[in-house]
Amino acid sequence: MQPKYEFVAKTLEKEIIERKYNDDKKLPTEEELMKVFQVSKNTIRKAIDVLVSNGYVYRVQGSGVFLRDFFYNGFVNVMNMTGLTKNFSADKIATKVIELSLIDPTEKKIEKLNCSPETKIYYVKRIRYLDGEPIEIEESYYNKDVICYLNNEICLGSIFKYITEDLKLNIGFANRVISTEKLSKEDAEFLNLEENDPSLNLENVVYLSNGKAFDYSIEKYNYLKIKLYNIN
Amino acid sequence: MQPKYEFVAKTLEKEIIERKYNDDKKLPTEEELMKVFQVSKNTIRKAIDVLVSNGYVYRVQGSGVFLRDFFYNGFVNVMNMTGLTKNFSADKIATKVIELSLIDPTEKKIEKLNCSPETKIYYVKRIRYLDGEPIEIEESYYNKDVICYLNNEICLGSIFKYITEDLKLNIGFANRVISTEKLSKEDAEFLNLEENDPSLNLENVVYLSNGKAFDYSIEKYNYLKIKLYNIN
Repeated sequence: MQPKYEFVAKTLEKEIIERKYNDDKKLPTEEELMKVFQVSKNTIRKAIDVLVSNGYVYRVQGSGVFLRDFFYNGFVNVMNMTGLTKNFSADKIATKVIELSLIDPTEKKIEKLNCSPETKIYYVKRIRYLDGEPIEIEESYYNKDVICYLNNEICLGSIFKYITEDLKLNIGFANRVISTEKLSKEDAEFLNLEENDPSLNLENVVYLSNGKAFDYSIEKYNYLKIKLYNIN
Repeated sequence: MQPKYEFVAKTLEKEIIERKYNDDKKLPTEEELMKVFQVSKNTIRKAIDVLVSNGYVYRVQGSGVFLRDFFYNGFVNVMNMTGLTKNFSADKIATKVIELSLIDPTEKKIEKLNCSPETKIYYVKRIRYLDGEPIEIEESYYNKDVICYLNNEICLGSIFKYITEDLKLNIGFANRVISTEKLSKEDAEFLNLEENDPSLNLENVVYLSNGKAFDYSIEKYNYLKIKLYNIN
């Protein structure tokens, strides 16, 4: 069974993302949270420890628990492996699948995914929208030996959720490279921008906790709408 | 006294940054390291634990300790609070101080540094060069109540080193926002780029471990030379 403090932490995390506490920029007091969740002070403290270490809040001695500055539109957490649906409340994000196909890997993909040339690769290209505006082009290459099945319906939602909750795989760590380049005409059109405008690029290799690389992806963000943040 | 494993970890870290192990992309075996450092197997293991958790290397069961992909030119660790001199070996980095002055904070700086309007601020603008090529424009705003003194000589070196080793302050955490924008004509000239070329921007608020913000800075990287990376 999930420990109580984890349930409390997850619930508060969800509420923070949904901007429930944005007016005060502060969480309710320990006493108030104890009443809401019907748990002990110790459980509340452990839940808040989790939120602190995940960078959502910070404590100020004697005055409470405050939200860090990042939970409003236009910020994507670079540290976060769970994708856009975790950064923004789900009802604000829409997805269009441009392509989903099973392909043979190029040499670059073989190197990034550390797979054999015979491995089949799911290629997914999606456009993500926030409040109806295009904010991201995402191209992902999944090793089919690890991600055994994908379809259009899954790609319309959170692939991360599918991987962890349905395939029950343990995602371990990711290497990310952030860069910027000039947009091609085609990509600029997807993002409602002009050719040669800057794009904010995130290139990721994501690994299972056993060290196996399963996803190589390139995300191109709309520079007028999205900033990335990093907390440490 | 510094524990032995810390000395070993720091020495190996320095060597990795100086690319000593770039040919093999692999550290020497435990046995070899025991001989080199004249320490126990346990000390070597603890040192490697440190390198793993700092994202320098990863272990592969039965075959050794491998370098992660990031330690070559053109990558700056976003997680790193220690500045460029930690990302590249010191002899490759040169610095030009464009301006150093004591100013009154604007409203934005008052908000970012959470200071009073009467606080004096050290404003530092520097250009950083890697192998003689301009790679970064850095503008920093230091709260003088915390960073009590700065001069040109200090700014020509590692300000981070001065803060931690001379002022003996404990740097705690940082909020960073990564974005991209079109370069102004003036900034483009500093970076040997064209007006409206993309710049890769890092905006930082850096805090002491007691939660006091002491530095607000904007770093603009040359998009042709620098990528940022993030390991988690």
